[in-house]
Amino acid sequence: MLKNDTFLRALMREPVPYTPIWVMRQAGRYLPEYNATRSRAGSFLNLCKSPDLATEVTLQPLARFSLDAAILFSDILTIPDAMGLGLYFAEGEGPKLERPLRDEWEVRNLAAPDPTVSLRYVLDAVAQIRRALGGSVPLIGFSGSPFTLACYMVEGGGSDDFRHIKGMLYRRPDLLHRILEVTTEAVIHYLNAQIEAGAQAVMVFDTWGGTLTPSAYQEFSLNYLSRIAAALTKHAGGRRVPSVVFTKGGGLWLEAIADAGYDAVGLDWTIDIAQARQRIGHKVALQGNMDPMALLGTPETIRAEVARVLSGFGSGNGHVFNLGHGITRFTDPENMAVLVDSVHELSRRPT
Amino acid sequence: MLKNDTFLRALMREPVPYTPIWVMRQAGRYLPEYNATRSRAGSFLNLCKSPDLATEVTLQPLARFSLDAAILFSDILTIPDAMGLGLYFAEGEGPKLERPLRDEWEVRNLAAPDPTVSLRYVLDAVAQIRRALGGSVPLIGFSGSPFTLACYMVEGGGSDDFRHIKGMLYRRPDLLHRILEVTTEAVIHYLNAQIEAGAQAVMVFDTWGGTLTPSAYQEFSLNYLSRIAAALTKHAGGRRVPSVVFTKGGGLWLEAIADAGYDAVGLDWTIDIAQARQRIGHKVALQGNMDPMALLGTPETIRAEVARVLSGFGSGNGHVFNLGHGITRFTDPENMAVLVDSVHELSRRPT
Repeated sequence: MLKNDTFLRALMREPVPYTPIWVMRQAGRYLPEYNATRSRAGSFLNLCKSPDLATEVTLQPLARFSLDAAILFSDILTIPDAMGLGLYFAEGEGPKLERPLRDEWEVRNLAAPDPTVSLRYVLDAVAQIRRALGGSVPLIGFSGSPFTLACYMVEGGGSDDFRHIKGMLYRRPDLLHRILEVTTEAVIHYLNAQIEAGAQAVMVFDTWGGTLTPSAYQEFSLNYLSRIAAALTKHAGGRRVPSVVFTKGGGLWLEAIADAGYDAVGLDWTIDIAQARQRIGHKVALQGNMDPMALLGTPETIRAEVARVLSGFGSGNGHVFNLGHGITRFTDPENMAVLVDSVHELSRRPT
Repeated sequence: MLKNDTFLRALMREPVPYTPIWVMRQAGRYLPEYNATRSRAGSFLNLCKSPDLATEVTLQPLARFSLDAAILFSDILTIPDAMGLGLYFAEGEGPKLERPLRDEWEVRNLAAPDPTVSLRYVLDAVAQIRRALGGSVPLIGFSGSPFTLACYMVEGGGSDDFRHIKGMLYRRPDLLHRILEVTTEAVIHYLNAQIEAGAQAVMVFDTWGGTLTPSAYQEFSLNYLSRIAAALTKHAGGRRVPSVVFTKGGGLWLEAIADAGYDAVGLDWTIDIAQARQRIGHKVALQGNMDPMALLGTPETIRAEVARVLSGFGSGNGHVFNLGHGITRFTDPENMAVLVDSVHELSRRPT
């Protein structure tokens, strides 16, 4: 049914003819056509909330580059928004929440939303993207991790010190656990609803777990990531639905992350993929891990970085090429083409 | 001569009666008396450039807490300022440089300043602080690492993506190496001049090395850190002058960092100090590594975090207690007292 299932097979550590590639934030501001659609939408939020426009931008990078997977275009804060915290975007800044959780009564009142009601627009987008893809490549669904969502929910936006959530963690761990419990339930329902709507793989983004101490990471992030892995729908549409977990800055904790129950572990660019494979590659597939800023180089240096990552992983199964973080908006789309083509050329197995 | 040399002895992995502690940014905005002096100075830059005021704020935390070392109060960008790049502070933001290095001719014109001329105010502060300390505790001198200074010099300030310096790294590594060569020479002269003026230990802060890939870290940061270690004055005033290197986010590369030639390695809070000791504690002393945000907790939770770090390091020599990064300005000074006293109480060896 799928014309190109290299991505799904690599996640399952099955043999593939070349290393598949997709890129975090591949539908994004480095693409002029994305910026045009976003202008037309009026706001980023309109773009996320319109299944038509979300489908349009999800497919844009696939029209330009021979990517091996599509990822649902959406925002990481759809769940807190559905919980009533009021997602908005201040111009030139990241996502923000109007009503961050600071008081105990707010935490006590928190409830997991029913995704088939308040996140219907996401599920509609998933179904519409699946139809638009027409079986060309698989569609990845995603969610933020409970801890990462909690960071936004308590801070009210991005942060460079996370003092509100860390203050809660050290002073009132019970309140933070309550937020994480509810958010975990929400993430499970949300991802399973995406799978039911047509997502063929899912990824959990733990963007801020790497700001914790090792023991706090275990208690406040990984613990909940494991619960999600256990509760995810494992088969749909007659196939296994593989899952990926990505903790940015989690390189020191790879062994524990590989034990959390996901099929693959995402790697940022600070870890040597050869070492990562040695440490955990017998348990899980690896996704990553080129420095996104390497795309600011020349075609020659990009090709050399691709070769470095590919040879670091080495031969054998279980590698999905990706950047170690989202592609920067300062990337020349021509360099993205060099990246995708280099990965395919340099990794092609003799047949 | 020194009444309390536990800090210097711990850095040399000699026996000490308790684990010594100092705290990064211990003279800072969490102290009302610091804020008062800073107001009086008119600006942060005046504070740094006046040896009288730098001495005053350096000593403030020692008057309140029984810390085991003083650290020179200064800014990390004194070297780029002395190179003519124009240090300034925009209100509410970090340090910035008026004339960042972007063009090849600017890089070619860069020269290492003579610290005895253009950084005289720092050396005067070192000498004056030494006199003011009167042999109570040792004084630490410091510098930013060449890569960290280069980040500011190329970006013109802090950054969340480091796209200018990384663009240079991937497109024109020769230019970045030229900046790093000159800056390394400057750091060596600067630290040795601080030692000559009276600094009894030195620390190199590699705040941004952790944003690199492993191979780029080796080539563009650690390589230069090693050159500095080799060129540092090793003895002064009849004593060994120990050195500390700290790469924030460098936990994955500890073995290589421990081989760079420093007496001690600073640890941020993302690494388990027990694992760090197992990996490199037979080669170097360790400095760290409590999460600065743990000081937002209660006296009980702070004491528990102190106990966790102390027992993680375990018995034996070679531990200097510190936070894993600078103390946050949101810290209650009372909690700093709890920290310092807990470290001393919980680590005291039976005599």
